[in-house]
Amino acid sequence: MDRNTTPPRISHVLETSLYVGDLDRSAAFYGALFGFGEFMRDHRMAALEIPGGQVLLLFRRGASLQASPTPGGDIPPHDGHGSLHLCFAIPAQALDPWEEFLAGHGVAVESRVVWPSGAVSLYFRDPDGHSLELATPGLWPNR
Amino acid sequence: MDRNTTPPRISHVLETSLYVGDLDRSAAFYGALFGFGEFMRDHRMAALEIPGGQVLLLFRRGASLQASPTPGGDIPPHDGHGSLHLCFAIPAQALDPWEEFLAGHGVAVESRVVWPSGAVSLYFRDPDGHSLELATPGLWPNR
Repeated sequence: MDRNTTPPRISHVLETSLYVGDLDRSAAFYGALFGFGEFMRDHRMAALEIPGGQVLLLFRRGASLQASPTPGGDIPPHDGHGSLHLCFAIPAQALDPWEEFLAGHGVAVESRVVWPSGAVSLYFRDPDGHSLELATPGLWPNR
Repeated sequence: MDRNTTPPRISHVLETSLYVGDLDRSAAFYGALFGFGEFMRDHRMAALEIPGGQVLLLFRRGASLQASPTPGGDIPPHDGHGSLHLCFAIPAQALDPWEEFLAGHGVAVESRVVWPSGAVSLYFRDPDGHSLELATPGLWPNR
């Protein structure tokens, strides 16, 4: 292996971010619909625990335009707008329960896509209009 | 378990999205710096394989404002702007190699943060100014 051309190891995506208008509203939506626990919440952001050792970060839009100082260094600025896209993997046997659960929570399924592999995706919106997807295994070659 | 209040299972985050100005430039950057393979690329998007059974989607900004028809259903529209944030988990022993590798590829580290747990994060920018982070274990309680 050439150490100059072969990248060191990446384990997985740790943090995925959405930018939201109302942190309380979004934290309530993601907590109630997915059952994600909260690692922390402040005026700027909420960090939600996702299965698989991952974290969903909800940032209040416009609240991270300046660097955020911490005792161990500054977190650089960032900010996002628009209707972003995020997909959660679900087991195949969770598809029907999810369709029922979404309906029971008044969340409209915007689209249902059957992929060539037979995998199925359900699309719906979060309170900011972000496009959320639940996908059964086989959508991509690696899972 | 109350089937109305306990959500069905989520396995993990499958797809994380960034919105980019130049798909070729971004695919080249992520390919060279992280070694991510490409599952597919068209005029609208590129799908990159991430370790851990995940996918990074690079969307050309403005190219997904309309629904995208597929034989099995329509993919709903979405689009994003701004400097978004994304964090990759790395093993602790990959921190020094990553610092060297970034330097060797002319990627400036914008900030280095040492968290209370001892975990370390490196922050740098992609070609669109998205804020990328590499974090060693311990940043969050779940990994």
